[in-house]
Amino acid sequence: MKEFSAPVDDIVFSLTHVAGADRLAGFDAATSQEVLSHFASFAEGVLAPLNAVGDRQGARLVNGRVVMPDGFREAYDQLVTGGWQGRCVPEGFEGMGLDPLTAAAVSEVFSGANHALQMVCNLVPGAVSTLRSHGSADQQARFIPALARGEMLATMCLTEAGAGSDLSRIRTRARKTDAGWQITGDKIFISGGDQDLSAAIFHLVLARSGAPDSGTRGLSLFLCDSRAARATISVTRIEEKLGLHASPTCQLAFDAAPAELIGEEGAGLAAMFTMMNHARLDVALQGVAHAARAADIARSYAAARRQGRRADGSEAVLADHADVARMLDTQDTLAIGARAMCHIALVELAVGERPDLADFLTPLCKIFATQAGSRSADLGLQVLGGYGYLEEYGLSQVWRDARITAIYEGANGIQALTTASRNLRRGQGAAHFLDLIAQLAGEGCAAQRDAWRAFMAQVQAVDDPSPFAHDFAQMTADLFFRAVWVKIAQVADRSLDGAKLHHLAQRLATTQPRGAMPEF
Amino acid sequence: MKEFSAPVDDIVFSLTHVAGADRLAGFDAATSQEVLSHFASFAEGVLAPLNAVGDRQGARLVNGRVVMPDGFREAYDQLVTGGWQGRCVPEGFEGMGLDPLTAAAVSEVFSGANHALQMVCNLVPGAVSTLRSHGSADQQARFIPALARGEMLATMCLTEAGAGSDLSRIRTRARKTDAGWQITGDKIFISGGDQDLSAAIFHLVLARSGAPDSGTRGLSLFLCDSRAARATISVTRIEEKLGLHASPTCQLAFDAAPAELIGEEGAGLAAMFTMMNHARLDVALQGVAHAARAADIARSYAAARRQGRRADGSEAVLADHADVARMLDTQDTLAIGARAMCHIALVELAVGERPDLADFLTPLCKIFATQAGSRSADLGLQVLGGYGYLEEYGLSQVWRDARITAIYEGANGIQALTTASRNLRRGQGAAHFLDLIAQLAGEGCAAQRDAWRAFMAQVQAVDDPSPFAHDFAQMTADLFFRAVWVKIAQVADRSLDGAKLHHLAQRLATTQPRGAMPEF
Repeated sequence: MKEFSAPVDDIVFSLTHVAGADRLAGFDAATSQEVLSHFASFAEGVLAPLNAVGDRQGARLVNGRVVMPDGFREAYDQLVTGGWQGRCVPEGFEGMGLDPLTAAAVSEVFSGANHALQMVCNLVPGAVSTLRSHGSADQQARFIPALARGEMLATMCLTEAGAGSDLSRIRTRARKTDAGWQITGDKIFISGGDQDLSAAIFHLVLARSGAPDSGTRGLSLFLCDSRAARATISVTRIEEKLGLHASPTCQLAFDAAPAELIGEEGAGLAAMFTMMNHARLDVALQGVAHAARAADIARSYAAARRQGRRADGSEAVLADHADVARMLDTQDTLAIGARAMCHIALVELAVGERPDLADFLTPLCKIFATQAGSRSADLGLQVLGGYGYLEEYGLSQVWRDARITAIYEGANGIQALTTASRNLRRGQGAAHFLDLIAQLAGEGCAAQRDAWRAFMAQVQAVDDPSPFAHDFAQMTADLFFRAVWVKIAQVADRSLDGAKLHHLAQRLATTQPRGAMPEF
Repeated sequence: MKEFSAPVDDIVFSLTHVAGADRLAGFDAATSQEVLSHFASFAEGVLAPLNAVGDRQGARLVNGRVVMPDGFREAYDQLVTGGWQGRCVPEGFEGMGLDPLTAAAVSEVFSGANHALQMVCNLVPGAVSTLRSHGSADQQARFIPALARGEMLATMCLTEAGAGSDLSRIRTRARKTDAGWQITGDKIFISGGDQDLSAAIFHLVLARSGAPDSGTRGLSLFLCDSRAARATISVTRIEEKLGLHASPTCQLAFDAAPAELIGEEGAGLAAMFTMMNHARLDVALQGVAHAARAADIARSYAAARRQGRRADGSEAVLADHADVARMLDTQDTLAIGARAMCHIALVELAVGERPDLADFLTPLCKIFATQAGSRSADLGLQVLGGYGYLEEYGLSQVWRDARITAIYEGANGIQALTTASRNLRRGQGAAHFLDLIAQLAGEGCAAQRDAWRAFMAQVQAVDDPSPFAHDFAQMTADLFFRAVWVKIAQVADRSLDGAKLHHLAQRLATTQPRGAMPEF
């Protein structure tokens, strides 16, 4: 198997030259590169070699507790010693205080090296931002440093049987007693619901504090500290999944578990969106990581494998064949483009001047980058042919692990509906988006932009945009992607891979843009 | 998990009303329906329940022999007792003597119920047709009845390390000795290379009888009877695969294995194509089977799962949501359309009046139907969301098992190259294809057909069509698919599902046809 190689130069190029990270006070390209290189060595040397081990062995439920695969505990200890669990946390809370862009870059590399472990560790940034936005000063002081120091890992306990995308059906109850709030109910699909990495777990739990029929208005967000709640929270099962075997997906039973309210009673949904907003871009970066990793494995294989002859009679390699070159180029174009899209959204979010634009871009990144991860893995698998179908070349694990990203943290269909409804009808998101396209591409995508504007008007005008949501979101994401590539071509010469970037951009420009007409 | 339900009515409708099976003397719709219903009961009751068992347990290598999963041996015995292994074999050779269309329909149902077991059993029809086309009368008499009775299963020993799509690199040697031909070399990716189902194995082996540098002209096709060759053929390994775990993919070492030449020395490639031609359409039907199975699981789940509310305030199910309905409809459209395409190719092949057309359609069916299987599985997985990612709902197995079909029996890129080169430059294939489109669709796909004709002229005119091969093959297959759907709509009222077929055809007609411009 091709060893994992962190795409540090590609990431730093994308942040600085494509996404304009210098708009963010506190971002420094040289520091970012240095921090990222440091993490990349750790990821390549420690995290990545455990990826296949974790896939084979999986997390197991032993005597009611989750046991992680061999080596994961030691790797986590090193992660914590390096301070990486506190990378998004301000120094005042004992964190590393990285700017959010560098922190996101670290996250991409982490996912590329070992998505399953990243999944277990990387709910912490969302928990921290939830505490900072909605928690009391006392809660912040008690929990943020513990999360930053790696004593605690976090979970997001939202889903219940029969209540996945439809949170109004949540039945888990929160009751106010003399001893404080207590939570009772069953949650499913809880990533890292238990593990043997951290001393304690910080559960964020969405529960019904209102009447049974109170819909989403009756939901509040709670925290459960596993140390206080141990006897009252049990793991009733871990799921057998298609991939991400080393990420324990738990069913948790809460039985009068002691809990603290975070923020206002009945404001659970708003607090949850804070937590999930971070997660959505992080999941998008997981897609980018898979797209890049699959491209790296496939290109390396295709450069080495002999097949057929060139026109001049010399021995050819797989990469010389037109159809293989097409697949490899597509993989790279997806990875690089999706990364730049995410970086632009992250910069916008961090700068904070146009929150509607950040909101508008986030679901597009989630949709496009997670599709890019799966498609690149699929193309890579095809490049390797029969070898791709074997487990030992690593592509099949990328293909399986990547597949969850289009589903979790808001299925892509939900993201499309958000794009075609709320994000189009409220605020300045769409207007800012058009400005962004013009800024990235000038007149480079003018025809597609005009077609998009016409489609947008149509979608805005109907009572129920849901029948258009998929096609509208796909067209919007494609326009964003192509505009990003115009920009990449403009700045390509600042990359060590300039010639390749020019080639990819030119090739993309010859392909059919996504129109407003439904694709089959 | 939704239990497997064989789409018997859909298949018979497609054969009789869409593909015009009555062009074939010997085809009788009522008999076909009866035979297929009989096999369907067996597939639903015996073969399908072993599918998940086989996936979990896998085929294992124990003391140098392959052990199949629990229950497979008993199922095979019943298959043999029912005479099904001889379904394509004439009665004169102790077979069932089914017409090839009904035999293919049985094969689709077999693949939908249990692809892995079908894979092990279904190399027999290709072996029989190879013997009938290229074997001596004596070879036919010795082996065809044994294959029909299930005493023997067959293999296709083609691939070697470093010689997958590129057969000129084959190094396995055949030497003529006083005791006859002997084969020495290593073969990889041999499906059913060993198993404990049949008493003996009939290996078809492509080996080099000419000089080491003789390219494909030095290749001959041989048969090895495992009873005569047991000590000289050993299983050196079985592969860990992404899917099809119950289909043992073996590495075989031949060490002076006694063999018989089939046909002429040096004519191995031609004989191999006889064997593979059957396999290509059979693999296409595996794609159809997966597309239909995934659609059935997803539609059944989406009809039962409550989510949200309808406009009138009543409780909705998942299938009521526009994006889910889109995915379910796409799955059905793919399955039904791909099946009809395969049936048309099978009728053309069986009738034999336009062999160039059968040759032209075969790679298109292989490409389109295998893509359809994977895409339908992918959409179904998305419909089920988090549950789709769990192993217990069965969709993840469909997704994993289906993935091999785009790779094996000639990777889809090779099929595309065949379409854009040989099939466009030799014979009447393209002209007959245009006649077929007109016959199916009348003026229904006229604009797309004209665009195709222009693209075809462009591809025919260049020296090296390989850079266009993918896009040309995709556009050609899409035109065939859409023409088939025009025809389906014309005869929909003869189906019990007429209303659904009209709906799917109308929806497809609103979508963007595949143009000549490269899609990204």
